[in-house]
Amino acid sequence: MGRVGIRDVADRADVAVGTVSNFLNHPDKVSADKAQRIQQAIESLGFVPSNAGRQLRLGVSTVIGYIAPDVSNPHFAEIAESVELRASDRGVSVFIGNSHRSREREDAYIQVFEQHQVRGLLVSSHEPIEERLAQVRRRGTPSVLIGQRAASLDQPSVSIDDVSGGRQAMQHLLDIGCRHVAFVGGPLGIPQVSARLAGASEVARGSGTTLEVINMPDRTVRGGHEVGEALLQRHAAQRPDGVFAVNDLLALGILNAVATGGVHVPREMAVVGYDDNEFAEASLIPLTSVRGRHQGFGTAVMDLLFDMIERRPVEDIHRVLEPDLMVRASSAGIGSI
Amino acid sequence: MGRVGIRDVADRADVAVGTVSNFLNHPDKVSADKAQRIQQAIESLGFVPSNAGRQLRLGVSTVIGYIAPDVSNPHFAEIAESVELRASDRGVSVFIGNSHRSREREDAYIQVFEQHQVRGLLVSSHEPIEERLAQVRRRGTPSVLIGQRAASLDQPSVSIDDVSGGRQAMQHLLDIGCRHVAFVGGPLGIPQVSARLAGASEVARGSGTTLEVINMPDRTVRGGHEVGEALLQRHAAQRPDGVFAVNDLLALGILNAVATGGVHVPREMAVVGYDDNEFAEASLIPLTSVRGRHQGFGTAVMDLLFDMIERRPVEDIHRVLEPDLMVRASSAGIGSI
Repeated sequence: MGRVGIRDVADRADVAVGTVSNFLNHPDKVSADKAQRIQQAIESLGFVPSNAGRQLRLGVSTVIGYIAPDVSNPHFAEIAESVELRASDRGVSVFIGNSHRSREREDAYIQVFEQHQVRGLLVSSHEPIEERLAQVRRRGTPSVLIGQRAASLDQPSVSIDDVSGGRQAMQHLLDIGCRHVAFVGGPLGIPQVSARLAGASEVARGSGTTLEVINMPDRTVRGGHEVGEALLQRHAAQRPDGVFAVNDLLALGILNAVATGGVHVPREMAVVGYDDNEFAEASLIPLTSVRGRHQGFGTAVMDLLFDMIERRPVEDIHRVLEPDLMVRASSAGIGSI
Repeated sequence: MGRVGIRDVADRADVAVGTVSNFLNHPDKVSADKAQRIQQAIESLGFVPSNAGRQLRLGVSTVIGYIAPDVSNPHFAEIAESVELRASDRGVSVFIGNSHRSREREDAYIQVFEQHQVRGLLVSSHEPIEERLAQVRRRGTPSVLIGQRAASLDQPSVSIDDVSGGRQAMQHLLDIGCRHVAFVGGPLGIPQVSARLAGASEVARGSGTTLEVINMPDRTVRGGHEVGEALLQRHAAQRPDGVFAVNDLLALGILNAVATGGVHVPREMAVVGYDDNEFAEASLIPLTSVRGRHQGFGTAVMDLLFDMIERRPVEDIHRVLEPDLMVRASSAGIGSI
């Protein structure tokens, strides 16, 4: 069965095709009587105005594309939700493309979103992607990089100050008396990972506390379990008395593995995560975590993207939000302070 | 700045516009020499073939729309991943729309996806939505309903046998000796909830074990915490010795609240969830759960959708997969068997 066309609507409403076209694009030009007949015809025929066609004519889409590295990580799902709420206020829909942290899939989604002429793009990526986004911007589709500060002066970004987050986590572990802290995460080439490590190192330097780096590129609960099992294999004296994991999934995996293996958390090993996802607070031993998403995160992202879409001048296109440390039982109540 | 058009590409490559069009749509008709020049022109100009335009001509899109109730629930994120892997094999991208369990937003996404002329739709919904999908199907966009068996003979669906899942969970709690089981979930009008309850009731009937229904429509970790806190308020003798929660988020919230409140899990209270999400196995007290997603789930969904898109005859458009009970520490090692 063919799609219902604009001509079918015109016939049913007994108006000219041009009147239906006006109704769709410049409704103020159509009389109330005709508008009502056209609306009824559209409903009874189930006519869907082709957005593809309308977009080409009007140059306006009602869709934003969001490329996320991994929607099964609640952190990105929560970002998506806060962005969507704000988009919804503006009458815009968000299409999420899940890149599975693959640069190839990121490229594929950027291309498909561009072909669909989305109004703008939001991109959470751990890869160097600014040059690709610059191409897309030159062809007319603005974007906001999420989660890392853009290097280019032309690329808007909204990020968390991960160096500060790393500092806060490490300072907290020092404050509660840790003498040997393991930083767990990887690959170290990822800007978010290296920034968190840089903050932690800065605080550790000269403190008398050892900072050991455990490179675990699989930043999932499974990866955390693997690290936890490896720590259990060590003699107790060789184990860190504090762990700072680069995200909550890793931290929860480590926490569960070592606690199950008989290590007391936090007395023998304090654990701190990053992101403060929904499972951090709900864990059986609630997890201390660095919280980057404020209420205002989604708002900041969407407002910046709309500034770009509507070509408003913006003072600072690199918005950097300060994170907060949420202290919970996985590191509380044992310290010297 | 205007978008680069097909004419610019033709000029740069020194070929006719029709040759560029052939290159895009029927590349086999273009000589290798011209194809190479056109490809170079496309790359140097940053030309993006308008999918909108191409779709209208060819009637073919490379995108599938997936409407999920809540991507922050790892269960739906995992479904999205398995669907995407299969889609990727077929050269198709998946756009995810997050409906936040709102019927209004489901409708909005269906409309926007239809306007973008996606090749097909996947819909996970807890609402009655078949009539809406029938409209869309009549206008040319096929869909597969995920997670509930469709009532209509024309609406393809892939679902888990939730009655069987409910039976398995309840039988397991009986087998380990529970005398008072709380079924936690809601609203009871949701097909997936009522089917799981129906299975549990069937097994409980005549068994001598009481089945109490605790209606908790907020099927999140937070909702589970609330139920757990309420159970802690009861005298120990009034508490259930078994809990069957309608999803893992609820189960984990209950488990964490009661264990933190001093109830021994599983000895004093066994807990069983549903979905077997990533956090079920990784919990500090690993959670027994009903696993519905087989390796084959994403494959079954995409294959059925492509049968519809390519109008292949299909024997059974209602595919129902059998779930498996994954027994773990939250209900193990205490039973009479």
